[in-house]
Amino acid sequence: MDLDLLSSLAVQNDTKVLLLVLDGVGGLAGPQGKTSLEAAHTPNLDALAKSGVCGFHDPVAPGITPGSGPAHIGLFGYDPFRYLIGRGVLDTAGTPFVFATGDLASRLNFATLAADGTISDRRAGRIPDEEGQRVTDLLAKNIKEIEGVQVLLQHVKEYRAAAIFRGKRLDGHLCDSDPQKVGLKPLDVAPTQENPTVEAKEAARLANTFIVRAKEILAAEAKANFVMMRGFDVYEPLPDFCELFKWRACAVAGYPMYKGVAKLAGMRVIEEGQSTVEEEIDLVIRELPKTDFLFLHVKKTDSKGEDGDFEGKVEVIEHFDRLLPRLVDLKPDVFCVTGDHSTPCSLRSHSWHPVPICIAAETARVDACQTFSETSFLTGGLGRIHSTDVVPLLLAHAERLQKYGA
Amino acid sequence: MDLDLLSSLAVQNDTKVLLLVLDGVGGLAGPQGKTSLEAAHTPNLDALAKSGVCGFHDPVAPGITPGSGPAHIGLFGYDPFRYLIGRGVLDTAGTPFVFATGDLASRLNFATLAADGTISDRRAGRIPDEEGQRVTDLLAKNIKEIEGVQVLLQHVKEYRAAAIFRGKRLDGHLCDSDPQKVGLKPLDVAPTQENPTVEAKEAARLANTFIVRAKEILAAEAKANFVMMRGFDVYEPLPDFCELFKWRACAVAGYPMYKGVAKLAGMRVIEEGQSTVEEEIDLVIRELPKTDFLFLHVKKTDSKGEDGDFEGKVEVIEHFDRLLPRLVDLKPDVFCVTGDHSTPCSLRSHSWHPVPICIAAETARVDACQTFSETSFLTGGLGRIHSTDVVPLLLAHAERLQKYGA
Repeated sequence: MDLDLLSSLAVQNDTKVLLLVLDGVGGLAGPQGKTSLEAAHTPNLDALAKSGVCGFHDPVAPGITPGSGPAHIGLFGYDPFRYLIGRGVLDTAGTPFVFATGDLASRLNFATLAADGTISDRRAGRIPDEEGQRVTDLLAKNIKEIEGVQVLLQHVKEYRAAAIFRGKRLDGHLCDSDPQKVGLKPLDVAPTQENPTVEAKEAARLANTFIVRAKEILAAEAKANFVMMRGFDVYEPLPDFCELFKWRACAVAGYPMYKGVAKLAGMRVIEEGQSTVEEEIDLVIRELPKTDFLFLHVKKTDSKGEDGDFEGKVEVIEHFDRLLPRLVDLKPDVFCVTGDHSTPCSLRSHSWHPVPICIAAETARVDACQTFSETSFLTGGLGRIHSTDVVPLLLAHAERLQKYGA
Repeated sequence: MDLDLLSSLAVQNDTKVLLLVLDGVGGLAGPQGKTSLEAAHTPNLDALAKSGVCGFHDPVAPGITPGSGPAHIGLFGYDPFRYLIGRGVLDTAGTPFVFATGDLASRLNFATLAADGTISDRRAGRIPDEEGQRVTDLLAKNIKEIEGVQVLLQHVKEYRAAAIFRGKRLDGHLCDSDPQKVGLKPLDVAPTQENPTVEAKEAARLANTFIVRAKEILAAEAKANFVMMRGFDVYEPLPDFCELFKWRACAVAGYPMYKGVAKLAGMRVIEEGQSTVEEEIDLVIRELPKTDFLFLHVKKTDSKGEDGDFEGKVEVIEHFDRLLPRLVDLKPDVFCVTGDHSTPCSLRSHSWHPVPICIAAETARVDACQTFSETSFLTGGLGRIHSTDVVPLLLAHAERLQKYGA
């Protein structure tokens, strides 16, 4: 529904809403005909399902497999078709870099260029963080602007960085310069649209100039003697999640990308160490009193799915289930457990399958679901909703929405 | 779906469609873990569920709690976001007043103003109907126009009336003059939008002038010596329900507001006494031969929910269930029983929870639902639909819709 209208109905109160995203939690049947959720022993998730209303959400649309960006954007209430965040912005958002409206962002991969002009290593030997930071700083010191357009550089991780062009209207419809395979020459950055805009042509020229200058500056480097640009995108701010829904929102996430999406939405993001779910839960316990909406992201369910590690995914789920009482004991008024998308082990990738969701609240119309699983939720009271319905439902169950119309 | 397209598929035949709206019929679990519908002994509603297809509808959108206006607008097939009817129009529509396109309507509350200029009684001592009619007439006789804009007055009930400004394009984005509490001074009517239109400024000026003049005229009144204006809204006609769907439609409703919505949609509204459901059913029996679509509205299910009276809601449902055979015996080709929204006793208010719906017809794909209840309907054949899907489904089950496309 229309965000402005939804926002006009939102009111403040003193309820607490906890949104737990088990990344990629939905799956397909594995060895014994059960999904990972079904094979796992999850008494605590099951208890939550018994006390709430269950069902599925489609992250984007039936049949559409979402990237992590659109999947979270939808869960946060934004139409993932309207608000598409490109990789350049998404990756960088997880760093301390602060975007300005209209910034053209691109991922920057340090690479090794062979004497014959072909790429011999697309990751510059996976140089460590310090090395990546050093060469990023080297570029930053030597390239401050191109043709009057400000150039900003941000190290991300290892061989990955970001380049941001600021100060002129540019168009991000540009192809990557990464040829995707070693032994090939890097590509020129070029507009991707059939009738490119003036701004796209200019952006391509700036990017190619940047690459040439970076090559000169990095000439003496043994490994990182070249850069490739990927995932061009112009930053447009999202409507502010806290202002829209009139609550203080906070994100606890171990991985930069999820911190990044939350930050783009305007949530307060906890920057410090969250390398284990135990640490994440510690932070939730610390932060919940200071917030109204808390987004907790758990990554490993997805990682095991991507690895095709069925038993591993079962173990991650069971491990989390044992920790769940620590969150339940916080007694959030609304406790929603779901995923951002499904990641079936048999597919080893994100998928389009609807994602299990449970909303536990005093105000929920409890259904007959007895276990937290794909098969059980088929008769759940939520039925099959769209990911963008999740925030309105969380607000509703927290009694944070006024009546619409007389 | 698009109303014009739907309309283009509609055809006439001699079927009868009965839409029974048990206001606020959905609920949440009460004392014994059952909803009012589940706790009630309802053999006749259960028989209907067994013979039809069951499920839920969302009145507006998941998570959104509707007012009575949007809830009925949706059930009648109109997009409740597109066709939002303000309180000023909605309340007045239940009276014999006939709107013209562009009328600016406002609720008028007679009130008592103390000598110090504060409101001492927001309802003028709840003056009876005759008294309310008398002071409304007094105003009508003395204020026929302001600055060339026609002023029309309509008594509604007790201390409530309506003021309608006609003859000039005006904007209804105006605040109420009601300070909401006694002991406070009435507010000036003022535009609510940040950059108000010329038409809103003019409307505010007219309203404030009206209030000043009304005060002079009512100066000698003991109780109703002042008026407050609330719920400004400009009347825009709805597409005609009878023309759209090519049927004769008739409304039987005990409460003015529901008569009002039906009248705004263009239905023939039975004006006479419908103070009990027995009387309502008598009227249905009398009117059904003269109509194709009959909307029957039963209010008390909602009233008991708003009172938080779980047992009372159970009794209202059981009482109605005992009367149901009188309607079943009319053998409508399509008999749909639903609510306009849920009103859980535990929330004492309208809610966002999906509303149970059953469509009984020879042409229905009967599902396995054995009882008329929220839990039973979770496995119903309708699944979870939008309220605006109800009319297309009623038309379809009445074989009143042609095939779409070749």
